[in-house]
Amino acid sequence: MAVTAEPVTEVCRRARAASLLLPAAATADKDDALAVLARRLRERKAEILDANRVDLERGVEAGLDAALLDRLRLDEERIEAMATGVEAVIALEDPVGELLERRTLESGIELEHRRVPIGVVAIVYEARPNVTIDAAALCLKSGNAAVLRGSSSAAASNAVLVELAREAVAEAELPAGTVEAVAGGGREELGQLAKQRALVDLIIPRGGEGLKAALEEVAEVPILYAASGNCHVYVDATADPGMARRIAYNAKVQRPGVCNAAETLLVHRDLATELLPAILADLHEAGVELVGDGRVRAAAAVPVAPATDEDWDREYHGLKMAVAVVDSVADAIDHVNRHGSGHSEAIVTASADAADAFTGGVDAACVYVNASTRFTDGFEFGMGAEIGNSTQKLHARGPIGLRELTSTKYVLRGSGQTRG
Amino acid sequence: MAVTAEPVTEVCRRARAASLLLPAAATADKDDALAVLARRLRERKAEILDANRVDLERGVEAGLDAALLDRLRLDEERIEAMATGVEAVIALEDPVGELLERRTLESGIELEHRRVPIGVVAIVYEARPNVTIDAAALCLKSGNAAVLRGSSSAAASNAVLVELAREAVAEAELPAGTVEAVAGGGREELGQLAKQRALVDLIIPRGGEGLKAALEEVAEVPILYAASGNCHVYVDATADPGMARRIAYNAKVQRPGVCNAAETLLVHRDLATELLPAILADLHEAGVELVGDGRVRAAAAVPVAPATDEDWDREYHGLKMAVAVVDSVADAIDHVNRHGSGHSEAIVTASADAADAFTGGVDAACVYVNASTRFTDGFEFGMGAEIGNSTQKLHARGPIGLRELTSTKYVLRGSGQTRG
Repeated sequence: MAVTAEPVTEVCRRARAASLLLPAAATADKDDALAVLARRLRERKAEILDANRVDLERGVEAGLDAALLDRLRLDEERIEAMATGVEAVIALEDPVGELLERRTLESGIELEHRRVPIGVVAIVYEARPNVTIDAAALCLKSGNAAVLRGSSSAAASNAVLVELAREAVAEAELPAGTVEAVAGGGREELGQLAKQRALVDLIIPRGGEGLKAALEEVAEVPILYAASGNCHVYVDATADPGMARRIAYNAKVQRPGVCNAAETLLVHRDLATELLPAILADLHEAGVELVGDGRVRAAAAVPVAPATDEDWDREYHGLKMAVAVVDSVADAIDHVNRHGSGHSEAIVTASADAADAFTGGVDAACVYVNASTRFTDGFEFGMGAEIGNSTQKLHARGPIGLRELTSTKYVLRGSGQTRG
Repeated sequence: MAVTAEPVTEVCRRARAASLLLPAAATADKDDALAVLARRLRERKAEILDANRVDLERGVEAGLDAALLDRLRLDEERIEAMATGVEAVIALEDPVGELLERRTLESGIELEHRRVPIGVVAIVYEARPNVTIDAAALCLKSGNAAVLRGSSSAAASNAVLVELAREAVAEAELPAGTVEAVAGGGREELGQLAKQRALVDLIIPRGGEGLKAALEEVAEVPILYAASGNCHVYVDATADPGMARRIAYNAKVQRPGVCNAAETLLVHRDLATELLPAILADLHEAGVELVGDGRVRAAAAVPVAPATDEDWDREYHGLKMAVAVVDSVADAIDHVNRHGSGHSEAIVTASADAADAFTGGVDAACVYVNASTRFTDGFEFGMGAEIGNSTQKLHARGPIGLRELTSTKYVLRGSGQTRG
């Protein structure tokens, strides 16, 4: 792979120039580029796999662990998934130009409030090369110029994927600079990227707490964190026992390494003697390591270690769960607001009052009643592809899809109005 | 005035506690508090004026200039304007709970996407005591706890106004902590406030570039800048001459010290010999100091000094204007995008193509066709009161009204759904 030693500023400057033209790009042209990209991914499969083999061999030499190597690895199936993912973005509505409001002001001026692209969006991510294609496709459809900064471990794979995206942009006659990439996955390039306030409008980091901390330290560009989740399931006194068992199990066990998996289970004290031991037995059988407070440990028929203060704040990213007994829905809400990360929180209840108290009182992007936290996802929400899930309260909260990649503009048409 | 030496963290902690209860506050209770506040402002006029007199005397002693003293000064009329401003907020629709989307997902889960308060909003402002009431009223109606930090020059006035707001909050039985104030207007308190990431969700500074720079240096809390404006009026080749003269004059002269006043006039070269001199003569007669490029100076019949490179980037905040001749609408767009601050930009034209090119190509919060830039304002836009104008692209762009003081929440109601 040809790592260009080009300064980050030059890369961003080309993206900026493209970003001034992209708001006017026709939906058909953007969709054409996406169709070409999907086709190239399939046609050039062998080239992609060759590059990926280089990354994998380097990864083995560098001693990457099995999980990282798996995330890095591409195969025919994963390449086909990238192509169908791009085709799914074609099917999504173009958010650019969407009319949010139109009205005639007292002055007679006609006001229109419309969605416009944000401008230059930088995506910073780790390992998985498919993010290169997801991010390029979402930015392209939303009229943003993308500056991609993958990790050095995927450099060869990403170089080929970026090249395919650029060919698609060129073939659809969209501005050069629509898809740019920062070569070199080091912290120095990251620092440079994070300081391009004049050229980059937004950085979206997809990665762990280390990446977040590194960016917070240096960033001058606004950041939208696709953040980690410390999610809870609260089983209320009135919960249907079978439903509670299924939801608690699903939220923890179905895919424990993702951000919408549950980390803590809260159970109402009325259920401590019967339902709680049954839920704990389910989790134990699935191989979940359990830690809990005194009341949980007293009730459990399976091993539950004592929970430390830190356990309530942790995202385990695996088969481990903290469990507490609470005295009321109010106590559950208080626990969630003190320890949660504002991602996805669920209550299992048959009481409308408890459901309303929980959905109103819990301060999070997504609050569930009688469903698993695992549904927080752009596809599940009917938004199409997503670029992560925001736990921030400003700009975008929840799945970051095409609309969340837009800003707005007021256009005001008059007939000579002046202010008196 | 009793300046409490209370730590900033304690003030923010009380606001945080209130912010957890405020999302559930009934619109009627919030409106009650606003009605009480309007009444108290009228009933306690004498007390407010006494406190204001203390600030004014201190200001004179400290040698504040006439403009600052004027902004600091309250009189019966200005107090009445504050009271009617609060009543106008009562009339605005409560944004909290507004339904943005509702649909049934493929999983059968019912998704609702609603507006919720942001949480704790800190407003940092200078001199004018009326901002205390505007900010408190807008935060209250939008369900946010407000942390107000006025300048030390208005300390006595602000202390009385905050007290009235607190009494109104108490009388309506809203949570204590709904309106909080940081005593002491120094940079140290500002720095402390800007670091309360765990307690404050947003800071909105209302002030000049000095305040902005001071905050950018230290802030860890997200900031929404109610920023300054370097606004342009572009007179296109096809402009109606009378309309062009009126709009250029109004945008510069009607109130030159505000952020939506124009700083630069761009005129198409076809109009350089006839219309341009007439516009310059109007401005000169109004006392506007003119600077211009070579073509402007050659055409003008009134004094026009040479413009320096810096002139194109400056917000004069007064009766001074930079003028340039451009060769096309494309050149005008390019000038605006290079030098503008993304606030408010106007084209005067009879050509639909030129209007579309300008509104599409100019990257700004508000783009006008055949109207003065001076209309950028929450009241003029039919949004009611505002807390400034955002030139950022993220979260809110344009006037910051009640909706812009909200975040969103997804509430998802299922019947036991788990993810497969």
